[in-house]
Amino acid sequence: MDLSSLVLRELAARFLEEDVGYGDITTLATVPPQARGHGRFLAKEALVLAGLEVALAVFHTVDNTISLDCAMQDGVHLTPGSVIAEIHGPARALLTAERVALNLLQRLSGVATATRRYVESVRHTGVRIIDTRKTTPGLRRLERQAVRDGGAHNHRDDLGAAVLIKDNHIVAGGGIRQAVERARAHAPHTSRIEVEVESLEALDEALDAGAQIVMLDNFAPDQIGEAVRRAAGKALVEVSGGITLDRIEALARAGVDVASVGGLTHSAPAADIGLDIERIG
Amino acid sequence: MDLSSLVLRELAARFLEEDVGYGDITTLATVPPQARGHGRFLAKEALVLAGLEVALAVFHTVDNTISLDCAMQDGVHLTPGSVIAEIHGPARALLTAERVALNLLQRLSGVATATRRYVESVRHTGVRIIDTRKTTPGLRRLERQAVRDGGAHNHRDDLGAAVLIKDNHIVAGGGIRQAVERARAHAPHTSRIEVEVESLEALDEALDAGAQIVMLDNFAPDQIGEAVRRAAGKALVEVSGGITLDRIEALARAGVDVASVGGLTHSAPAADIGLDIERIG
Amino acid sequence: MDLSSLVLRELAARFLEEDVGYGDITTLATVPPQARGHGRFLAKEALVLAGLEVALAVFHTVDNTISLDCAMQDGVHLTPGSVIAEIHGPARALLTAERVALNLLQRLSGVATATRRYVESVRHTGVRIIDTRKTTPGLRRLERQAVRDGGAHNHRDDLGAAVLIKDNHIVAGGGIRQAVERARAHAPHTSRIEVEVESLEALDEALDAGAQIVMLDNFAPDQIGEAVRRAAGKALVEVSGGITLDRIEALARAGVDVASVGGLTHSAPAADIGLDIERIG
Amino acid sequence: MDLSSLVLRELAARFLEEDVGYGDITTLATVPPQARGHGRFLAKEALVLAGLEVALAVFHTVDNTISLDCAMQDGVHLTPGSVIAEIHGPARALLTAERVALNLLQRLSGVATATRRYVESVRHTGVRIIDTRKTTPGLRRLERQAVRDGGAHNHRDDLGAAVLIKDNHIVAGGGIRQAVERARAHAPHTSRIEVEVESLEALDEALDAGAQIVMLDNFAPDQIGEAVRRAAGKALVEVSGGITLDRIEALARAGVDVASVGGLTHSAPAADIGLDIERIG
Amino acid sequence: MDLSSLVLRELAARFLEEDVGYGDITTLATVPPQARGHGRFLAKEALVLAGLEVALAVFHTVDNTISLDCAMQDGVHLTPGSVIAEIHGPARALLTAERVALNLLQRLSGVATATRRYVESVRHTGVRIIDTRKTTPGLRRLERQAVRDGGAHNHRDDLGAAVLIKDNHIVAGGGIRQAVERARAHAPHTSRIEVEVESLEALDEALDAGAQIVMLDNFAPDQIGEAVRRAAGKALVEVSGGITLDRIEALARAGVDVASVGGLTHSAPAADIGLDIERIG
Amino acid sequence: MDLSSLVLRELAARFLEEDVGYGDITTLATVPPQARGHGRFLAKEALVLAGLEVALAVFHTVDNTISLDCAMQDGVHLTPGSVIAEIHGPARALLTAERVALNLLQRLSGVATATRRYVESVRHTGVRIIDTRKTTPGLRRLERQAVRDGGAHNHRDDLGAAVLIKDNHIVAGGGIRQAVERARAHAPHTSRIEVEVESLEALDEALDAGAQIVMLDNFAPDQIGEAVRRAAGKALVEVSGGITLDRIEALARAGVDVASVGGLTHSAPAADIGLDIERIG
Repeated sequence: MDLSSLVLRELAARFLEEDVGYGDITTLATVPPQARGHGRFLAKEALVLAGLEVALAVFHTVDNTISLDCAMQDGVHLTPGSVIAEIHGPARALLTAERVALNLLQRLSGVATATRRYVESVRHTGVRIIDTRKTTPGLRRLERQAVRDGGAHNHRDDLGAAVLIKDNHIVAGGGIRQAVERARAHAPHTSRIEVEVESLEALDEALDAGAQIVMLDNFAPDQIGEAVRRAAGKALVEVSGGITLDRIEALARAGVDVASVGGLTHSAPAADIGLDIERIG
Repeated sequence: MDLSSLVLRELAARFLEEDVGYGDITTLATVPPQARGHGRFLAKEALVLAGLEVALAVFHTVDNTISLDCAMQDGVHLTPGSVIAEIHGPARALLTAERVALNLLQRLSGVATATRRYVESVRHTGVRIIDTRKTTPGLRRLERQAVRDGGAHNHRDDLGAAVLIKDNHIVAGGGIRQAVERARAHAPHTSRIEVEVESLEALDEALDAGAQIVMLDNFAPDQIGEAVRRAAGKALVEVSGGITLDRIEALARAGVDVASVGGLTHSAPAADIGLDIERIG
Repeated sequence: MDLSSLVLRELAARFLEEDVGYGDITTLATVPPQARGHGRFLAKEALVLAGLEVALAVFHTVDNTISLDCAMQDGVHLTPGSVIAEIHGPARALLTAERVALNLLQRLSGVATATRRYVESVRHTGVRIIDTRKTTPGLRRLERQAVRDGGAHNHRDDLGAAVLIKDNHIVAGGGIRQAVERARAHAPHTSRIEVEVESLEALDEALDAGAQIVMLDNFAPDQIGEAVRRAAGKALVEVSGGITLDRIEALARAGVDVASVGGLTHSAPAADIGLDIERIG
Repeated sequence: MDLSSLVLRELAARFLEEDVGYGDITTLATVPPQARGHGRFLAKEALVLAGLEVALAVFHTVDNTISLDCAMQDGVHLTPGSVIAEIHGPARALLTAERVALNLLQRLSGVATATRRYVESVRHTGVRIIDTRKTTPGLRRLERQAVRDGGAHNHRDDLGAAVLIKDNHIVAGGGIRQAVERARAHAPHTSRIEVEVESLEALDEALDAGAQIVMLDNFAPDQIGEAVRRAAGKALVEVSGGITLDRIEALARAGVDVASVGGLTHSAPAADIGLDIERIG
Repeated sequence: MDLSSLVLRELAARFLEEDVGYGDITTLATVPPQARGHGRFLAKEALVLAGLEVALAVFHTVDNTISLDCAMQDGVHLTPGSVIAEIHGPARALLTAERVALNLLQRLSGVATATRRYVESVRHTGVRIIDTRKTTPGLRRLERQAVRDGGAHNHRDDLGAAVLIKDNHIVAGGGIRQAVERARAHAPHTSRIEVEVESLEALDEALDAGAQIVMLDNFAPDQIGEAVRRAAGKALVEVSGGITLDRIEALARAGVDVASVGGLTHSAPAADIGLDIERIG
Repeated sequence: MDLSSLVLRELAARFLEEDVGYGDITTLATVPPQARGHGRFLAKEALVLAGLEVALAVFHTVDNTISLDCAMQDGVHLTPGSVIAEIHGPARALLTAERVALNLLQRLSGVATATRRYVESVRHTGVRIIDTRKTTPGLRRLERQAVRDGGAHNHRDDLGAAVLIKDNHIVAGGGIRQAVERARAHAPHTSRIEVEVESLEALDEALDAGAQIVMLDNFAPDQIGEAVRRAAGKALVEVSGGITLDRIEALARAGVDVASVGGLTHSAPAADIGLDIERIG
């Protein structure tokens, strides 16, 4: 597997530390140490599932004898009432870990669910839906995965992973051509050079300078088609900024290659998932 | 001040590490080291501001010569177009820190804005609006503060800070009376004992056992008034679960003392705040 | 179980790092890697046992094949010569871990033993003996547990867990009434408000302001009875400061509810526990 | 200076995190942000001062504008009532940091005070009083310094810093001679080889094998003089185990070079130091 | 600036912790606290300088009043005897920090010096010399910078930053075409797809599948020219594996675009740099 | 065992974090999760093996089901083509961990190989070859072990582990005698006092002051024999600085006890070790 198990355990430990503090005094006082519990995770609304792995890591960090039998897996679309997983283990551990696990499952499934809507709306087109760097601080790895579980792709992971020349870089760098040249000279040869442009003139200049991806910022709908034509065969066309479900189909028809949507991660409401712990005794 | 400056710096460093990776290669390639920048944070919609402190910590972690002149402070209600703060400093640092600072400001202002709506709706009543443990993993301290900036209060900070006996604790603990007694014997004398109840019978039992706070779970509207009457003089009454802006006024009229609202933190959309970096040269 | 296994492992690793440094060069030089050892923990004086869990975590951090068979458990009163536990495992690991494990066992059993004396002296009264924040920096969680193993209770875990208004808060806050009101408005509704008072007049003012716990500071013995009478039915009465075994019975007879004793943690001598490693070959 | 400032800041941050938790809710509620305070640290009993540096680091970690004017310095013997230092700064920060700073000062001064008694009792002899590895887990660096402030010396800092061959190493290593040879072959040439012996025969064997320090374990008083004579010119003589103030003078007269005393760190009661915060407004 | 100051301070602290341990006992014993020192860093052989920033961070971590006046900057070629920098500050701090600072300067200048030789040998060609992932574990960021100071470029920073399909990926992925397609579907659109090929046939297949960079593995010299011709206009050509100064010119003449050289970081000998501390008193 | 397993896991996690970043996107895209792999580590040149333990820790950190069957062990001299170990496990994990494991094996075996050459050259003499503090920052523990695997010994582990008085300490301390006396008074009695001398006069002064080890700095070859004669029976003689394989035999004949060689760690080229992953399917 990937490094993720290590990363998941570190995140789980940090989140539990935050939520448990000096100890779950209610559970310690009322639940006998030998009591065992059994619970079911249920989808309480239609949703796309994400976050099972980290939720399991949370339970295992508290007690690694807990077992989680997953009826579903990340990326699956669930109808209301679906059973997601069954969980067994020491009752104290289940109660102590429950909230952190649910917070993660609900939030990440919220991201996957919002993402799936965008992906579905452009299913029969060639548009790639991607996320942005507008993720929740501290949760980028998890939200990146939830976006993939939703069926979309990721933009660069961090500022070191790819070049994206924006307006301020152009001003500071002495124009588009010079900024592209500096970026190409500085960046690893494995990275494409992306330039954000605000007009067709700037688009032409970026293409001429050798940009391999152009990001259209606030282009009027009728300009987008023209931009796609000019970039054809030269660069990928990405649209960004204020992209909603209403607009996404028109953008796809216009022929853009990539649409980056900040709302996938910055404003997706939590999905409604419950954990009913049924027997403790 | 409090420990917060230490905590804020640690969080800022972790979030920057996540977003910057091996370095902002675009900015390093295109912006000269001596270039300076100047920017303005603007409210692009009506919102309640939160997160200025941690946003400043982010900038200072990258470069502690950056200055931030705040026109507004956390907790203030802003109209669209309001200038929040002006920022000056080395252009590279501003560009590298920008995204993390904005992600925090937008998310925390989103929490404060959602909170303020609930607070306003019960302004002339005695109801205390509070948050829950349904916070974003890793951000609880920041979101707790944003809730206060929105004008509401906090529930217990973590599982060690107070006793809240829920259904599973009651089942495992052998009934309400026994659970309350065990909790009182175990918990610090500084903590009130709170019990979640699902019926008027359970309410009576909890009051009789000496619960100091009762949390009404899924009570029908007409039962809430009765619960308030029975608890009067004996315990605070908290309502929780599925509380929306629509319901909050009726709850207030029914006389509850506290309403805990998970949505303040788990589903508030990000507030729209922009940073226009105007001059770099 | 609780989060404790995670916390214990972190503490064990940190303490071993401190004691082992670049490696136990004596053991590495003289003990063959395949040698196995067998040891017995013995109480060398009468004591109340505490710290077995963290001691085991220390051994397991060095080598998780070590087995520890406990004849006794935390909280038990032992006579001199009692066998506490038998330990088996690789001889190198036993020798490397021995000192850290003993340091913890001795110190925490010292706390539990001192605590038990206070608890015994008020056994047939209603007084709750509690600890204070005068714990060893870095060991609060462990010492809190040792105090419970000794049969006493804990005060608030940290400054965020409960309100305790002291003299300086009263001066800064504009008097008792105002300080209590501010605290109630700011603190979670799950926290009782405690006020430290230095005279009967201040006590009356605190009770009148709605304090739910009053802490009597340096009250003369004859005043304590009067304070208990005034607070009856209104607030719990806690005494604090300079409480010794000599005074504790009189305080109990006077009817106080809670006595907080700093000496449980700040001045308890280490209990005398030995580890005889008997066979290594 | 040494690395200590870095280490002190890390320790201070960890200890504050433990004591402050989610924030000092009492102080935040009752003390206005602009209030300033002034305090005096007072010795409430005769003591030897230790811990000023780390106490200052604690205050500076909370607020680095706090000023501490020290009237005394670590290592000084104080009479009851002596003013140790005056402190000025924001009242909130003073109140939040106070407990951690005092816990450290009291504990470390307790170590220095106990140490000084031993040092004084052998002042006109050549005996070097030293500590052991029986320090408080997590505080070794601070307690090592407090022992020096008390006028004594340190034994090896950790298991990697020097060789000390004990009974179990001898059994496992095939006898004293072989253990010494292995240790000399393995250990850095900068380390002396120390051997613990339980009889005069073992002493002779250790000296013969080239031990450079011999530690006499449970020798009868009359045997110690003989051991000193045999070791003269060949090895330093250290006594260890059950050394009390009563016995120390006789040991010195017998001519031992070094006496290691576990009680300096494992059972010293906290020294009584107060912090009177006098004006807050 | 970039995040580097934060990163540098963390690295400096970790490295000092490793080298200083419980404290520089020699310096503390022999050098008075008020003594001041003055030193000069000298190049003792011809070299390209790298590592000044982190060396300064090391000194500042021990004592932030140390001043370092740099006569030279990273990336400059120095003749033997050149003065690199002058340093002033407390003598204890200079002596304690000296070794760690020198270890870094010498190692990183060694990397920059080795790199410069490769860069010079292809100066008038279009070949880009780059490093590999064969860096010293824990020092990648510093060695990446030293490679740039030497005048070369970097390959991808880590496994998440770009796609490089090697033989095992091709076997597991079902052939070149399928592996490239899977990579393109999975990787961010900002990353070029690089494929390692071992024959001209594999090269053709990779180009046909749309590889944007081809890495020639162990190609015979005469095959390289042919490979360059076939890739012209379709993909960048990188050579890797066993590249030495002897071979680099021929590779350049053959027209490759990029040559990755593991030896820049895995086998560069340390450069000889001295620090003469001249006055202490 | 020693603490090493804990330390190794921490180092492995840090190094993997550095190399893997947000995830091995190539492997995740092209290798199916259920694929298994099998590899062989091969010595591609004559070398002395070191680093197997930490290499294994790297694989286990990514996936603890990986098995490593070692045909050889650390410290063994290998001929070209020797199989070092066979490895089996999930293909993804093998590919993700491969580079970090190899980087460590190659570097540490390089150190062991260089060390062995020095050790062999003085095999039939009494000279002890040792390393210095000129290790790679962050890798000291691993390189110390590799030096021992090469058959040599270690100097002090860090500045706290032993006293070494150099020229600057002598100047600051008021001469050799005073520096030695201060060091003996300050340092633990378990540490020998070592003094660096630059002339026979200084040597005499150091011996007279009681130095137990003298380090000859830049002594002419004919002076070394004289120095050895003067120190005989009084102190160990260590030579340091510019020691190469050419000179080492002459030094041995001159009768020195210890030769410290910085080049063992600061300039050893990486050993050539390959990992052929043969089947993945």
